[in-house]
Amino acid sequence: MPELLFSLDSSKPFTAQQIVGHNRWHPDIPPAVTVKPGDTFRAHCREWFDGAIHNDDSANDILNAPLNNVHTLSGPFAIEGAQPGDLLIVDILDVGPIPQEDSGPLAGQGWGYTGIFAKLNGGGFLTEQFPDAYKAIWDFAGQSATSRHVPHVKYTGIVHPGLMGTAPSPQLLATWNAREGALIATDPERVPPLALPPEPSGAILGSLSGAEFDRVAAEAARTAPPRENGGNQDIKNLTKGSRVFYPVFVPGANLSFGDLHFSQGDGEITFCGAIEMGGFIDLHVDLIKGGMETYGVTENAIFMPGNTDPQYSEWIAFSGTSVTLDGEQRYLDSDLAYQRACLHAIEYLTKFGYSPEQAYLLLGSAPIEGRLSGVVDIPNSCATVYIPTAIFDFPVAPSKDGPVRIDPGIGAPHASF
Amino acid sequence: MPELLFSLDSSKPFTAQQIVGHNRWHPDIPPAVTVKPGDTFRAHCREWFDGAIHNDDSANDILNAPLNNVHTLSGPFAIEGAQPGDLLIVDILDVGPIPQEDSGPLAGQGWGYTGIFAKLNGGGFLTEQFPDAYKAIWDFAGQSATSRHVPHVKYTGIVHPGLMGTAPSPQLLATWNAREGALIATDPERVPPLALPPEPSGAILGSLSGAEFDRVAAEAARTAPPRENGGNQDIKNLTKGSRVFYPVFVPGANLSFGDLHFSQGDGEITFCGAIEMGGFIDLHVDLIKGGMETYGVTENAIFMPGNTDPQYSEWIAFSGTSVTLDGEQRYLDSDLAYQRACLHAIEYLTKFGYSPEQAYLLLGSAPIEGRLSGVVDIPNSCATVYIPTAIFDFPVAPSKDGPVRIDPGIGAPHASF
Amino acid sequence: MPELLFSLDSSKPFTAQQIVGHNRWHPDIPPAVTVKPGDTFRAHCREWFDGAIHNDDSANDILNAPLNNVHTLSGPFAIEGAQPGDLLIVDILDVGPIPQEDSGPLAGQGWGYTGIFAKLNGGGFLTEQFPDAYKAIWDFAGQSATSRHVPHVKYTGIVHPGLMGTAPSPQLLATWNAREGALIATDPERVPPLALPPEPSGAILGSLSGAEFDRVAAEAARTAPPRENGGNQDIKNLTKGSRVFYPVFVPGANLSFGDLHFSQGDGEITFCGAIEMGGFIDLHVDLIKGGMETYGVTENAIFMPGNTDPQYSEWIAFSGTSVTLDGEQRYLDSDLAYQRACLHAIEYLTKFGYSPEQAYLLLGSAPIEGRLSGVVDIPNSCATVYIPTAIFDFPVAPSKDGPVRIDPGIGAPHASF
Amino acid sequence: MPELLFSLDSSKPFTAQQIVGHNRWHPDIPPAVTVKPGDTFRAHCREWFDGAIHNDDSANDILNAPLNNVHTLSGPFAIEGAQPGDLLIVDILDVGPIPQEDSGPLAGQGWGYTGIFAKLNGGGFLTEQFPDAYKAIWDFAGQSATSRHVPHVKYTGIVHPGLMGTAPSPQLLATWNAREGALIATDPERVPPLALPPEPSGAILGSLSGAEFDRVAAEAARTAPPRENGGNQDIKNLTKGSRVFYPVFVPGANLSFGDLHFSQGDGEITFCGAIEMGGFIDLHVDLIKGGMETYGVTENAIFMPGNTDPQYSEWIAFSGTSVTLDGEQRYLDSDLAYQRACLHAIEYLTKFGYSPEQAYLLLGSAPIEGRLSGVVDIPNSCATVYIPTAIFDFPVAPSKDGPVRIDPGIGAPHASF
Repeated sequence: MPELLFSLDSSKPFTAQQIVGHNRWHPDIPPAVTVKPGDTFRAHCREWFDGAIHNDDSANDILNAPLNNVHTLSGPFAIEGAQPGDLLIVDILDVGPIPQEDSGPLAGQGWGYTGIFAKLNGGGFLTEQFPDAYKAIWDFAGQSATSRHVPHVKYTGIVHPGLMGTAPSPQLLATWNAREGALIATDPERVPPLALPPEPSGAILGSLSGAEFDRVAAEAARTAPPRENGGNQDIKNLTKGSRVFYPVFVPGANLSFGDLHFSQGDGEITFCGAIEMGGFIDLHVDLIKGGMETYGVTENAIFMPGNTDPQYSEWIAFSGTSVTLDGEQRYLDSDLAYQRACLHAIEYLTKFGYSPEQAYLLLGSAPIEGRLSGVVDIPNSCATVYIPTAIFDFPVAPSKDGPVRIDPGIGAPHASF
Repeated sequence: MPELLFSLDSSKPFTAQQIVGHNRWHPDIPPAVTVKPGDTFRAHCREWFDGAIHNDDSANDILNAPLNNVHTLSGPFAIEGAQPGDLLIVDILDVGPIPQEDSGPLAGQGWGYTGIFAKLNGGGFLTEQFPDAYKAIWDFAGQSATSRHVPHVKYTGIVHPGLMGTAPSPQLLATWNAREGALIATDPERVPPLALPPEPSGAILGSLSGAEFDRVAAEAARTAPPRENGGNQDIKNLTKGSRVFYPVFVPGANLSFGDLHFSQGDGEITFCGAIEMGGFIDLHVDLIKGGMETYGVTENAIFMPGNTDPQYSEWIAFSGTSVTLDGEQRYLDSDLAYQRACLHAIEYLTKFGYSPEQAYLLLGSAPIEGRLSGVVDIPNSCATVYIPTAIFDFPVAPSKDGPVRIDPGIGAPHASF
Repeated sequence: MPELLFSLDSSKPFTAQQIVGHNRWHPDIPPAVTVKPGDTFRAHCREWFDGAIHNDDSANDILNAPLNNVHTLSGPFAIEGAQPGDLLIVDILDVGPIPQEDSGPLAGQGWGYTGIFAKLNGGGFLTEQFPDAYKAIWDFAGQSATSRHVPHVKYTGIVHPGLMGTAPSPQLLATWNAREGALIATDPERVPPLALPPEPSGAILGSLSGAEFDRVAAEAARTAPPRENGGNQDIKNLTKGSRVFYPVFVPGANLSFGDLHFSQGDGEITFCGAIEMGGFIDLHVDLIKGGMETYGVTENAIFMPGNTDPQYSEWIAFSGTSVTLDGEQRYLDSDLAYQRACLHAIEYLTKFGYSPEQAYLLLGSAPIEGRLSGVVDIPNSCATVYIPTAIFDFPVAPSKDGPVRIDPGIGAPHASF
Repeated sequence: MPELLFSLDSSKPFTAQQIVGHNRWHPDIPPAVTVKPGDTFRAHCREWFDGAIHNDDSANDILNAPLNNVHTLSGPFAIEGAQPGDLLIVDILDVGPIPQEDSGPLAGQGWGYTGIFAKLNGGGFLTEQFPDAYKAIWDFAGQSATSRHVPHVKYTGIVHPGLMGTAPSPQLLATWNAREGALIATDPERVPPLALPPEPSGAILGSLSGAEFDRVAAEAARTAPPRENGGNQDIKNLTKGSRVFYPVFVPGANLSFGDLHFSQGDGEITFCGAIEMGGFIDLHVDLIKGGMETYGVTENAIFMPGNTDPQYSEWIAFSGTSVTLDGEQRYLDSDLAYQRACLHAIEYLTKFGYSPEQAYLLLGSAPIEGRLSGVVDIPNSCATVYIPTAIFDFPVAPSKDGPVRIDPGIGAPHASF
């Protein structure tokens, strides 16, 4: 394997590791590791909740998930010679669950989890319809995942890092805080919130300590959203074999990453929607000097996906438009259209015996495709969601015979406040 | 070929055909043709602007495109025995340009067009950045399309009907008019408009005439948006081999379709973004009695795409988030995120020598994938757009050597008010 | 459509057409049509047996199939300026069944056929195991084929010309006749024969007549085998979108083609193994002057397949080695290995209720993959055959529950001497 | 990771390991490990030459490769309850190079090799044209392989075990020895040999010793060929995610495996044609009791390939027929046809600057497709070989501009007697 430059001990919490990573974005978090352009290396990644979620049949851990503590990122990795204006080339050579450990209490040790966050603790894409907390545990067997909480499905993981990005410059960080603060100010009491301001509570900032820690913790941006630096993009297609080009905003680039997913559907709709896990990632890095200007990539990653994503050739697809469940017409709202498409898929799957929550958990974690099919046909967007039929062990297409009925088993664990 | 039940003469306007179709949705437009469950048949389809767009190097026709006249639909086709509550199975057996005619003045006769609508006449997904009218003519050679207006690209068409649907019931039509009227009322003078109310001017209603014509024309819904009945979904993956399941709202179902596209990218972002053409479609229809309840499909089509879509294995992809160009943070707005991703792609392609308009026209018409990658990471959505690299005749990936420069040729015809 | 340069009337035999094609290879068969480099054109193709096979439930026509009369080729097409040493670029823009005719007595009018030739009249890949004649009729619905003779399967056609090639030079023709004659001479009475010598009986030679006809008929090569000029390669992947490069041996190149297949498995194992049909093909031709030397392509076509072949993602595969059914060890014989793999597939399918002949007909015509997996592991080759599982309407993978049993229906029509 | 039941120390030879595997087939080689149906486990695999091939620029090791010593197999694994007549289900959950070791002197530690065997020491598919020994070293970077000996190509590995099988029964072993002996007897002095008889020299037989070792060594079959038990099938598509069904011939089944390949083209044409390596494999085993009869699988594995094989969408393909280079016509000889197709591909690649040996090594190891396109068109078979164009870093399709010329670098190391 490539040289392991960021090692984690599965038995210890994130802050007790030999090298401590971080869970906020800030230019002044010191690099944990320095590499050269052309280097290949391995890093371990902690599952995003630092072990707070358990392989059991209760959803209390999801209900009370410590949102202030996410995401436990590996890094920053400084790349020698990187300067603002460069493009950082990151090749994802390999990525997977915790190597050599396929059982144990930590997600990534042969299993992972998907959660529906409660509306009062994070919410999700369909939080109005699903305000309570639910959980599904997925067992890994090689590339495949199955769940005792969502039976009769099995699919090939589309493994990827949910989060990867470079450090922001001070100016960029200030921009983030200003614009997100302005949004929050429009409805500061909203539940779930419109955005997350800097939050010193729970902040982990690598090797910083003392007053410098306090200063940075007060300014540092949360890791939840994707931004100009890449970040929590949750792009399911950043699988191994992918090449990503990140803009560089600070000397050294300061690359960080984590939030590994064994699988995820487009949108990661339950918020904790992927199959979350810890694991490893092997990267190769290089630079295109001055590439931001040369290629016009001044913000947000561009990328070339790998060529070993799981192949499916038959899909059952659902469409939705931007009309609310209450019948209100919205103007070209693809998020609403995608919600409606997902709700249609959920409604359909319940006809086969699944609970709505099982279907929702399935859509969040399976390799479904979510497409912006029509975005100009006023006033309705059309969004579509495609589910591969081969993941089911029963025939899932409509027929004159009507749906078969599966045994939904014990169902998805449930918890509410 | 299957029996031709709806024939069009390319040399005559839509209203002068043997059977006159329609360009509005209303339950009282009489069926033009009646078929039985299990039947297979062919229909011709008129290009959506009824021949108003020409194979030339001027964009004046796009600038003044007669939006009141669209879409020129073939139908309604009544299916014997269909009743509200049924699911109508439609197999798209084949679809293509006007058969046996590969040259001539009508789109579909060996060529098609893509337009950027002017902001003052329809607009489009990026109308703020592209307020003027532009056009690209595409020439067909078998499955492939090339353009003198967008050189150095060639791609395999992903042929599909942009629009297909069943007739609304009176109640459903009333719902549409009410909710869309309410939206319009929030900003009735907006340019482009928020939605399109019933518009007797330009209405074509099949065999209706006289007072009945006037009544229906005053009530009938425009065909621009997709709605509960399917309609103008612009789903690029409804290619031949697809099976679609439509809810039935009126006795006979009254299926209509048109707006054939030789190719289209997800979103059809320039509004007239596909490669528009007339042509033919071969359909097989059948019924699942009571299927709406049985399968929970009470609105919006569900479908199973065909398995002969063009295959590409290498993509260059762009991401965007829901921050405006002015730096304002929006809350989980995937449309904005997709706009930003598309603008990033356009910016990138200009580095190779394309004009922004050429790049925009390309994104509208090529088989690009538009995905809702992240929809829950507050406050930013992440949308991604994937362009197959093989459609270019030059290397399009970033490299240390910088981009090659292509000759953009004569460029895309331009017109403005 | 492109200009139709070679038109066929479905109601008339091959020799009664306006332009008469040919069924032998010879440099002196005059061009029927002349085109220029860069031209695009359409040609009709006669089904290879000129209408001798009927859409019925008898295999007598297969039993007595007039082998001397094949293949009824369209051409020759002379390409202006083509000279020996050039490479002829042929783009297959489109190919399909007889346009505008989907019912009628001629294969290609909405239907096609697969035959197992009797050992006494042609034989086939497994003729020792299947010495009698059998037939299956396939009905086309858009891209799909189904058969009353092989129920419970449906697959997307992989439409292609079985035969396409350039005319041989006199020297090349002499080489063919010499080497094939030498082979025949080793066992001239063999049934089926080792090869087919020139055969004036049944010869069709375009516009030739009189003494010239007699001379050419006595020399001209049969069209059964593929040779240096391309010819009857039966490459299932020469689908639309393919670009083929043929060596040019005579001035004008003299391109001919035919033997259209709606579908075929690798090997076309029943001899008449594809789904045979008449139809049309749209071609674009061009030249690489001197390309044979420049690219080292002095014989046999090279090609780039299209990108719209039907996609399947799950396969059931069978392997075989070069040991005879009698247990004799042969040395690295991939034909034998493929025979054994195919026999294994047939044995397997009979466990689900098919007759061996139905399974054999299926393997000949469905889009199966036949691969030379191991060719060096002395003394056994390993060949593999892959069947897409999605073509069956029942679960076809092995399981602990054992195979389901389908109703094989009326079975494949049978005839023997 | 799954429990490691067969561990290898990379620094020790095969016979010095804690558990000693075997390199011959015999029913009396005792199981090294016993597992239960339903078990999942990991095993290490030694590279097939036990470390005799080095990461250097000499081909002397290939020239003198110790053929008597292959293949160093892991196993036998007894499966509790397996009885003759059962089908053994083997799921390949994962397979890859030596875990956690990416540099070192043993193939599998970050690198692998492809060899052309000398005609006097093994030979290969094209040994008449390539009688000397050559070698290429491939470096792994994640899923990709590149070589200093074959520059300008890079491809995604299609990782698989070249060899896996169950133990033969005494009767089956006797059959093998009899039929292969009979073949050898037809030309016992042939170079390379027709087949390999039992060879005590170099035999490794697990825990056997003394007289029992001598008896078994004298009877045991060599592992080179694939046979009824699976064995050295070299099926490149047995990648992770595959499910294989093996016939069971002895109580316990006694499964063994090895000969891991990082990549291989269909046919493994240079004999040592894959990218050879040591590594690991994770398996899940289960039984279908009585499955051999139930499913008609009495010999040779059947299998369902995984769905994450590398995807390529553009190919340059070559065809060949069964005529020798000397112009002799052979009868339906697909091996010869495939040789000719491969020689055509080699000839073509040399026009771009590669040496013939570089091209040959490339065809052996890259994920090329080798298909039996036509096997019935007397007297010529047609075989085809497909090379993905995306593996080259230069345009490889024919064009009017002629081929670009690459720098072939240091070339492939060469050695001869």
